[in-house]
Amino acid sequence: MKALKVFCDMRLTDTALRLFEQGVAPHLVVYPATPAGSVLAQAAFDPGLAEADVVFGQPAVGSVLAATRLRWLQVASAGYTRFDTPEFRAAAAAAGLAVTNSSSVYAGPCAEHVLSFILAQARLLPSALRSQCASGSAEWDRLRHGCIPLGQQTILLLGYGAIALRLVELLRPFGTPVSAYRRRARGDETVPIVTAESLPAALAVADAVVNILPDNAESRNFCDAKHFAQLKPGSVFYNIGRGTTVDQTALVAALESGRLAAAWLDVTDPEPLPPGHPLLIAPNCHLTPHIAGGHRNEAESLVRHFLDNFQRFVAGTPLHDRVM
Amino acid sequence: MKALKVFCDMRLTDTALRLFEQGVAPHLVVYPATPAGSVLAQAAFDPGLAEADVVFGQPAVGSVLAATRLRWLQVASAGYTRFDTPEFRAAAAAAGLAVTNSSSVYAGPCAEHVLSFILAQARLLPSALRSQCASGSAEWDRLRHGCIPLGQQTILLLGYGAIALRLVELLRPFGTPVSAYRRRARGDETVPIVTAESLPAALAVADAVVNILPDNAESRNFCDAKHFAQLKPGSVFYNIGRGTTVDQTALVAALESGRLAAAWLDVTDPEPLPPGHPLLIAPNCHLTPHIAGGHRNEAESLVRHFLDNFQRFVAGTPLHDRVM
Repeated sequence: MKALKVFCDMRLTDTALRLFEQGVAPHLVVYPATPAGSVLAQAAFDPGLAEADVVFGQPAVGSVLAATRLRWLQVASAGYTRFDTPEFRAAAAAAGLAVTNSSSVYAGPCAEHVLSFILAQARLLPSALRSQCASGSAEWDRLRHGCIPLGQQTILLLGYGAIALRLVELLRPFGTPVSAYRRRARGDETVPIVTAESLPAALAVADAVVNILPDNAESRNFCDAKHFAQLKPGSVFYNIGRGTTVDQTALVAALESGRLAAAWLDVTDPEPLPPGHPLLIAPNCHLTPHIAGGHRNEAESLVRHFLDNFQRFVAGTPLHDRVM
Repeated sequence: MKALKVFCDMRLTDTALRLFEQGVAPHLVVYPATPAGSVLAQAAFDPGLAEADVVFGQPAVGSVLAATRLRWLQVASAGYTRFDTPEFRAAAAAAGLAVTNSSSVYAGPCAEHVLSFILAQARLLPSALRSQCASGSAEWDRLRHGCIPLGQQTILLLGYGAIALRLVELLRPFGTPVSAYRRRARGDETVPIVTAESLPAALAVADAVVNILPDNAESRNFCDAKHFAQLKPGSVFYNIGRGTTVDQTALVAALESGRLAAAWLDVTDPEPLPPGHPLLIAPNCHLTPHIAGGHRNEAESLVRHFLDNFQRFVAGTPLHDRVM
């Protein structure tokens, strides 16, 4: 077999780089002049990509479309918004280009991140961590009896991909009733699926709504004023998907009116929020700076996941996390 | 069967009270003149108790020992420190008095509380919730790559009762290696048991130590300076047992030296801590005010658990959560 050229525009640690080069050998690695700034930043056009058989990283759409030898692209994130268009899908199909993402790498950390939010809310940590109230005081009673066991909460997931699947696994021993909204049910889901028709009824009974939607033309502003008006009063909204799927003005209004008891967001639009943004001062709005997928040795996890798929690609067996 | 007299010094909500009285009938309920202040406060001596066959609540030791008709005491908490003495055990055995606690009621909430701590630490929430750093910044890199998935952490539990058992169930899908220290292994534990001999070696490799020890003569100051010196540098200490099991001066020193990366405590000695107490200002010390067992409808949960045991008592079948 002729040596393949694998283009990589990822910013890798030394350990991850060694792992990557050893794993790709005897095939060839091609690097761009300037590595990408982050896992989500789109790299500039790079001529090295034009010769590549395989790309691993965050290439520009134009560079990918111009790379005539390219047979496989693995995006180094769970999100792949800029490729998720009818035009790109058509071009990829016509060129016989396989596209995979790295959702397996991020499913676990993202699920743990949102579960840390859900449990922090259930145990009232934002108030409790600031309190040294005495046993029997009114504040203590409020905290102690305000905690709601997860088995007594109904959770609705928006989106049912790798993160949702992992979150459902983590929630199982809690005995939490979980259902999930999915555009098109496939029949192999591990929880009851909510359709667009039944979504209002599901929103009306959920204690927690966990938004895991990706960013695409259909999902933009999915959670709008109408959506928030359908929520059960006192429910809590979580977002570890993409900030663009939420009408943030409507979210702030839902928090200010008290209809939403709290919001926990790892993603916003834009990121970071500019100083003075209404979400920064909305009541009970808890924000983390898009770190849900992060974890120790993230670069090595991404490389290991790529190499596993690279062996499959070389052997001609089905790729993991294939999205096109 | 002659009607039993059930003495209850619990402070119950209206709903819990109705549930209790309906459940006990046709047997008789006896209340004290002054109900208890909290689930942990010891009630004053009450003459009503002297006539009781059954006690449910937090009676004084002297009142229990003086109640010659008493055949069963159910303590309305998981802890039962004041009864856990050789003297009381001997007196209870001689009098044929059964003693149960309410650990089944508190196991779930306590396990969820400490898991909220463990996940908040794993996802670096104390820093991340205050940050709106930009993707790719040094702070963002620190947060994003500082998060340690639970599957990559080794957890050592100190104590292996109902709370530990539930925590082990909740941790299972994370793939976390868990072991537990127990005074006397019984052979039916669901995780590897660490003995006093192997404890130093276990402390040296644990990323997280979760103290769930009850308060008794053997456990007082169990976590002392020697204990903290045996911990793996950078590990995290959690306490949802009792504050008296920790030498707090040694704990503060371990936090100040950086040997401990953080401490998460729901219990301290005393509670609440007085203003200016060193634990309140120790680095990375996160405190909640003894609310781990709390949950919505706690009083009803306690009553339901009592009534389940009351039916067993009347029928002469073995009681749940029997401790003597």
